[in-house]
Amino acid sequence: MPKRPYRPKIVLIGAGNVGFHLGSVLAEKGHHIVQVFSRTKKKANRLAKMISSKAVNKLDQIIPYADWYILAVSDQAIVDVASKLHPKIQKQALVVHTSGATPGKVLQPYFPHYGNFYPLQTFSIAKPADFHSIPICIYANRQPSRNKLTQVAKELSSKVYTIDDQQRAILHVAAVFVNNFTNHIFHVGESILEKENIPFDLLKPLIQETVAKIQEHSAQSMQTGPAIRGDENTIQQHLEYLNKHPAFKTLYMLLTQSIQKTNR
Amino acid sequence: MPKRPYRPKIVLIGAGNVGFHLGSVLAEKGHHIVQVFSRTKKKANRLAKMISSKAVNKLDQIIPYADWYILAVSDQAIVDVASKLHPKIQKQALVVHTSGATPGKVLQPYFPHYGNFYPLQTFSIAKPADFHSIPICIYANRQPSRNKLTQVAKELSSKVYTIDDQQRAILHVAAVFVNNFTNHIFHVGESILEKENIPFDLLKPLIQETVAKIQEHSAQSMQTGPAIRGDENTIQQHLEYLNKHPAFKTLYMLLTQSIQKTNR
Repeated sequence: MPKRPYRPKIVLIGAGNVGFHLGSVLAEKGHHIVQVFSRTKKKANRLAKMISSKAVNKLDQIIPYADWYILAVSDQAIVDVASKLHPKIQKQALVVHTSGATPGKVLQPYFPHYGNFYPLQTFSIAKPADFHSIPICIYANRQPSRNKLTQVAKELSSKVYTIDDQQRAILHVAAVFVNNFTNHIFHVGESILEKENIPFDLLKPLIQETVAKIQEHSAQSMQTGPAIRGDENTIQQHLEYLNKHPAFKTLYMLLTQSIQKTNR
Repeated sequence: MPKRPYRPKIVLIGAGNVGFHLGSVLAEKGHHIVQVFSRTKKKANRLAKMISSKAVNKLDQIIPYADWYILAVSDQAIVDVASKLHPKIQKQALVVHTSGATPGKVLQPYFPHYGNFYPLQTFSIAKPADFHSIPICIYANRQPSRNKLTQVAKELSSKVYTIDDQQRAILHVAAVFVNNFTNHIFHVGESILEKENIPFDLLKPLIQETVAKIQEHSAQSMQTGPAIRGDENTIQQHLEYLNKHPAFKTLYMLLTQSIQKTNR
């Protein structure tokens, strides 16, 4: 007989980009979110309505007897919310935050059972999230809590990893490179073309192929271009053109050097 | 009655990544490649066999009476091949190269009709190319040649652009950013995780989402992360960790500054 699925009573604190999608997928998988908290009543209502939960917008309305409290709030708000929450809830509750940038340990002063439930993706409410392919990193200070988090995470995603605070901090550094910095590089390409009235659409298939290639190969083995070829002629032409964009010129030089150093 | 499609006699010079895919799609669309040239007999044979063409591996075996000569050779080889080809072929022939990095004008000393036929994608023989979605940039020194190139390009792709030498040079600078530099940033992320035995797979959905977002929005409007938030606390933590990777630390600082300057 199949094991009865684990169904903790969950209070979701935060109904922004992460809270919205995490609450939605938990409900979709049959979990009961007993309350949705947001300081913004409208946000709490919107999500609560969708997932048949109750909206609250004051921390002291939060019930004390839930099994899980998920803090899907901004990094800056985590400790503040935790400190206000802890006198109100039962000691056996498991309290996790969903941040990639903040250690789970910041919850330690407040709760005997704490951890992290971090879906590694960039979310926006306007765009559906395919949770099944989103890696979920979990951690908790005690093994039984880790087991529970893993069990629920595996209902949502096919990729569940146990990642401690130190590993998650490193993951976050790498995520800043591949997400924030890559996006900035796209902006640079877009700006260069915009100045000359060339549509950025011309580069989109190339961008997609660049990403498709690293799905199966290491990025280093896929490196091409004038830097790795040592094609100084082309590099000089590019730098000359980039006199029009001094900030981008510095980036071009440093990235070219970095490619050449890495592949020496 | 539909216009009879234009069917130039084509000689394809080069059977590497670009030549292979361009020759294949031209044949697929009903074009007759009368000869395939490669210095490497094996490469010429492989492609010629696939597309019912004739393989040659010496420039003086190239027939003089074709309508188009497509030079799909490396940037460094274009002028050399052109100079050896020009005494052998008829003056009315249209000669184009397929490079994004080299002006079409380098062919001017040799041929009265010259131009460029540049499929803007990164190709590898091992991977099928979906030409329909690949932008093709065309140019020729005379309008009738531009019309002919456009007509054939439109059979291959839904995105055909007339791009002159100067525009193509700028496009190439932007392509270096979004392809070569982005790939290097992926390598940085991969290296950071590798050092800590964290699988790079964890970041792949994030990378795909980063790219998905700019299909419909400007990259600048999609910028997130500690740099644009001015989150100095997180930035300092990241820089501290990156003491382990001094080269990547410099990149992190410069990219962070660049995001902050751009969005000020």
